[in-house]
Amino acid sequence: MGEVAFVFPVEEHNKLIAAVYQKRGYDADESAIAAKYCGMATWHGIKTHGGLKSLHLDEVIGSKVGGAVPKAKIKVLPSRFPAVEKWDAQKKLGQPVADAAMTRCCELADKYGVGMVAVDNAFHYLWGGGYVMEAAKKGYIAYTNCTAGLAEVVPFMGKKATIGTNPHSWGLPTTSAIGYPIVIDWATSAVAMGRVQQLAREGKQLPPNSAVDKDGNPTTDPKSVAALLPFGAHKGYGLGLLIEMYGAYIGGNLPSLRGKPQEGGPHKRTMSFFFQAIHPEALGVGTFKDRAEMEKNVANVLKDILCAGNEKCMLPGQVEAEAAKKSAKFGGLLFTENEIKEFKREFEEAGIHWDASGLKKVEL
Amino acid sequence: MGEVAFVFPVEEHNKLIAAVYQKRGYDADESAIAAKYCGMATWHGIKTHGGLKSLHLDEVIGSKVGGAVPKAKIKVLPSRFPAVEKWDAQKKLGQPVADAAMTRCCELADKYGVGMVAVDNAFHYLWGGGYVMEAAKKGYIAYTNCTAGLAEVVPFMGKKATIGTNPHSWGLPTTSAIGYPIVIDWATSAVAMGRVQQLAREGKQLPPNSAVDKDGNPTTDPKSVAALLPFGAHKGYGLGLLIEMYGAYIGGNLPSLRGKPQEGGPHKRTMSFFFQAIHPEALGVGTFKDRAEMEKNVANVLKDILCAGNEKCMLPGQVEAEAAKKSAKFGGLLFTENEIKEFKREFEEAGIHWDASGLKKVEL
Repeated sequence: MGEVAFVFPVEEHNKLIAAVYQKRGYDADESAIAAKYCGMATWHGIKTHGGLKSLHLDEVIGSKVGGAVPKAKIKVLPSRFPAVEKWDAQKKLGQPVADAAMTRCCELADKYGVGMVAVDNAFHYLWGGGYVMEAAKKGYIAYTNCTAGLAEVVPFMGKKATIGTNPHSWGLPTTSAIGYPIVIDWATSAVAMGRVQQLAREGKQLPPNSAVDKDGNPTTDPKSVAALLPFGAHKGYGLGLLIEMYGAYIGGNLPSLRGKPQEGGPHKRTMSFFFQAIHPEALGVGTFKDRAEMEKNVANVLKDILCAGNEKCMLPGQVEAEAAKKSAKFGGLLFTENEIKEFKREFEEAGIHWDASGLKKVEL
Repeated sequence: MGEVAFVFPVEEHNKLIAAVYQKRGYDADESAIAAKYCGMATWHGIKTHGGLKSLHLDEVIGSKVGGAVPKAKIKVLPSRFPAVEKWDAQKKLGQPVADAAMTRCCELADKYGVGMVAVDNAFHYLWGGGYVMEAAKKGYIAYTNCTAGLAEVVPFMGKKATIGTNPHSWGLPTTSAIGYPIVIDWATSAVAMGRVQQLAREGKQLPPNSAVDKDGNPTTDPKSVAALLPFGAHKGYGLGLLIEMYGAYIGGNLPSLRGKPQEGGPHKRTMSFFFQAIHPEALGVGTFKDRAEMEKNVANVLKDILCAGNEKCMLPGQVEAEAAKKSAKFGGLLFTENEIKEFKREFEEAGIHWDASGLKKVEL
């Protein structure tokens, strides 16, 4: 017998998540957008950035402690540069800020070929892959990065964590070529802190070169882990550092204090976001008679890369596309029994009665 | 006694390299720019992309075989997108194309906040780090990527090489903060093919997960290597794939045929380049009263990252900056005796007499 899951219909899930946000003071629009990305994450099999995580984050570092501000208005700052906008998010909820910024990048790309939005004073946007996936589905080459909430990563050759797990996310408009957008989306740490905790619970060891202990020495024992290492040695370090530097130019402050209100005086503690969209037709150098021909070339290149011998290769975004197919097949978001219980607890805590007994139970 | 080197004065070196290019049919301007980047690479300790490599590449895949076309004119194609230009390089020498494209990106960034140039039908530009370093020294956040000449890298989980060693290069305007620009510049393969050959000569083993043999199985024996693996498993694969996709949107063709005129019919064989510059003031979200304050924030962030415990950490670009100091100290480009002999052979082959006996010999 296969794994069992409960099917939470998307509309019902999103409505309930949004209701919890509204109970916490958020307005209907920002709540609906946050809920939409929670649903999208689960739909695409992203277990780590769904509704439970999103509501929990808001609880521990968000609206309950002043890290996120319900109904905050984004301030679009004056700029002499028409293709790049500067936004002060004023600690507005991360998902509606990210959604609006990515949408604005696409509008700017329609006009200039490329559009960028730099965001300071931001609250966690959770699943970067979701924003670039949406833009890629609309036909753009999309990119985002954000400084992570905490500095958990030790620079290459160092001993002290002073860099975030800083993720990069790229989305490519490959739907007509392969049926789904390529989404390259990962943190620049070798593993996630959540994975370390999971291995500790399971009594398993970490892969080598993933983490250090409190003295800054490499360890594979998850229980001794004090900080993470970058993936790919100096290369992953460079990619993590790059996002700290984007943050520094945008206006972010000391990474070692980010997310730690208890240390180091009156410094800023917020995250920074960066978004970018390129109109692919701005890149096509004269050889394509139209967009369809460009996309045929993209399909041919991908076919060539995954030629005979490479049948086992996956494209980035393929796992998400396959999870989405499974969600569609079962007609909703797939959760374990424990996750459903946790949702029930969250909703009840917000004073929302939810009868979960009607959820369909399926074998995956 | 330390290592011994010969000091080749920059001006003399660049003049002679340019003279060889001119003998091969290139005009004075393109020859001078190619020679400038050869000199810059050696000045910054980049042994792999100096004059000898540049002239050799032109010999084996460039002007002597039609891969590069002396005196070719760049065609700037019409576009409805003002911040992104499309260039058909018409196989012009890579360095002058890259230098002009990066310069144009900076001009566009002055106007729009960001500028991009997509280049198709390109010939090898060698040292991507050089172009972003120049732009970073002028004050821009610069980026370039290019598809590599050959598909030497196996996609993650695959057996057949269908992706180039595709390098990414970022340059950041950190000179006022730390004395030199941060330059993040590396190939997306775990090792370079040149390194494999070097280890084979020395009878040494490769690090694990660096390469595969002819059957696509992992190997650490440099003599059995048929293809390279991406660095950092699926993450490095994603970064290499990303550049193939930029190439595909720009107009490049099948990666497995690139650089192999003997296979697969009348397909295109050329490389594609992508360049980008961001004006940092387009990013600064209102918290900085001027550029100096922004740069102070950048300096503070870097100081925080390299705090107590992280004294041994290097910043990307630091090795290049230290090599440049050494070159300055000795008053020129530092070469081994064998390299000097190789230069003499190159110059003589081009009919240029060069008396190397006057070069200063120094102990490093």
